[in-house]
Amino acid sequence: MHVLIIGAAGMVGRKLTAELLSHGGIRGHGIDRLTLADIVEPPQPETDLPVKVLACDLSDPATAPSLVARRPDVIFHLAAVVSGEAEADFDKGYAINLDGTRYLFEAIRAEGAKEPYCPRVVFTSSIAVFGAPFPDKIGDRFLLAPLTSYGTQKAIGELLLNDYSRRGFLDGIGIRLPTVVIRPGKPNKAASGFFSSILREPLVGMEATLPVPRETRHWFCSPRAAVGYLTHAATLDTAELGARRCLSAPGLSATVAEEIAALERVAGPAAVKLIREAPDEAVARIVAGWPRDFDTARARDLGFRPDASFDAIIRQHVEEELGGRIGGA
Amino acid sequence: MHVLIIGAAGMVGRKLTAELLSHGGIRGHGIDRLTLADIVEPPQPETDLPVKVLACDLSDPATAPSLVARRPDVIFHLAAVVSGEAEADFDKGYAINLDGTRYLFEAIRAEGAKEPYCPRVVFTSSIAVFGAPFPDKIGDRFLLAPLTSYGTQKAIGELLLNDYSRRGFLDGIGIRLPTVVIRPGKPNKAASGFFSSILREPLVGMEATLPVPRETRHWFCSPRAAVGYLTHAATLDTAELGARRCLSAPGLSATVAEEIAALERVAGPAAVKLIREAPDEAVARIVAGWPRDFDTARARDLGFRPDASFDAIIRQHVEEELGGRIGGA
Repeated sequence: MHVLIIGAAGMVGRKLTAELLSHGGIRGHGIDRLTLADIVEPPQPETDLPVKVLACDLSDPATAPSLVARRPDVIFHLAAVVSGEAEADFDKGYAINLDGTRYLFEAIRAEGAKEPYCPRVVFTSSIAVFGAPFPDKIGDRFLLAPLTSYGTQKAIGELLLNDYSRRGFLDGIGIRLPTVVIRPGKPNKAASGFFSSILREPLVGMEATLPVPRETRHWFCSPRAAVGYLTHAATLDTAELGARRCLSAPGLSATVAEEIAALERVAGPAAVKLIREAPDEAVARIVAGWPRDFDTARARDLGFRPDASFDAIIRQHVEEELGGRIGGA
Repeated sequence: MHVLIIGAAGMVGRKLTAELLSHGGIRGHGIDRLTLADIVEPPQPETDLPVKVLACDLSDPATAPSLVARRPDVIFHLAAVVSGEAEADFDKGYAINLDGTRYLFEAIRAEGAKEPYCPRVVFTSSIAVFGAPFPDKIGDRFLLAPLTSYGTQKAIGELLLNDYSRRGFLDGIGIRLPTVVIRPGKPNKAASGFFSSILREPLVGMEATLPVPRETRHWFCSPRAAVGYLTHAATLDTAELGARRCLSAPGLSATVAEEIAALERVAGPAAVKLIREAPDEAVARIVAGWPRDFDTARARDLGFRPDASFDAIIRQHVEEELGGRIGGA
């Protein structure tokens, strides 16, 4: 099986790559070739498998046809301009998140017109496809009413994925990932970045700023859970999805105060003291339009499994990213 | 006020043009200039107002900028490849219904970047943005889950309209029109065409074919009601809409059997005998995925007014299109 990851240099892409290589496959389906693409060249992993890494721009109409020409069996489409950047740069957001996605789906369709071809396409959508006002728990029949350009672009990607799947051009599944915490490494331009940094920085003895009120409620999963959703999506029987190929993944609903309480349980009160409140109205306004809790019965019935607790999410980060050590050097 | 109608040669476009010219304005707002555009040149109406008619292809990227360069205050965007044709010709449907709509919105944004400009844009969406399974009555918070490429393209148009409005590039409102009956003139390529022809043809003594079972339920409005929705949308205070700029217009829910019963009441049993059953599985499959009834409390609260009854819809056609005469020559 040939697997292509578009957006492989991003956080989820790197975690997914590591997961696939550590098992030599996806949930028992062997991989014999891996292609890793991103706007910057993804790191060449150490492995015996043939891995091709390449830098390419999905908003260039020539990119998708060249990626698809090698006829990958499974395509993970993770590439996106994140929410804060898509809001700041209207043209760039539409160019990558909408046009890039459409070029990919069109390239697959064109490839299939030459010779039958219908790859599994796993598309990472986002809870930003929903916008206030919403019910306490958002179910899978609730209106997609995004309040950001990023959410709009993801919602359009979902509609295209459904239509291209219905027409038999590809075998798509879209997963609305919760906000992934704790993101390792440096902050990105996502408006949701602080949800990670208020945990990540204090865990290594550094200060972090909190731009929103502590009662702000949001929807989370760990990097490991996110990767698990994607590999499950790559292998499940899409006939179970019917015409609605996109769904909200399970997650944990928590307030910032609950995040901080979990941090205190795992890392003690000294860590919590490193969080400094610095209200940012622009961030607060974006986040206020985001959903807080979901009814994910559909995803659970389909076998998607969430994290056990917020404490477990923090412990996972300490294990995987900090070698078990809390408090920095 | 300068008004632009894109799709002015279509049935709704022609009815809207006649309505605007008969009042010299839109609900009390005077018109001093009218531009009528379509893929074929719309007929030059008889009027003292300056009216420019032009043939243009919205899927040509040069078209929208030239239409918008004259800075119309109100733009009715009615142009679309209809459902049956968009399903048969995948590329054409996306080129007109998605790319064409986006070119229009982008042209408005570009015009506004030169000098402030934020026209009212009235976009005709469709109940085809919804797909089965749905509740008995579809409310305005229900998932857009189209089961046709046409419905997909209209749903994407709604998302773009919301985002461009939110960003202040245009002042948009999208109206999901019910299926318009009785369409005057010849059948078009819409899969919904038979809902009109089983009434229109018998009213002039001609045979008509019915491709679906009589218990098929669907959602209707008259041409006059459709035009009323559009003029109301052009003039209402969009601040009342919030971020969700698109809504389902009121209508009448009726089965084919109820349509035929209304025909019998208005035109007698001889008319009904002209309807011949000719089951067409392709049409029946498309129609089975369409919605049947709506909760339109939101539109009614905003002042949109539906037809009184199906009998009234048929009588309106007899008056306006047949000069009051039933039964043909």
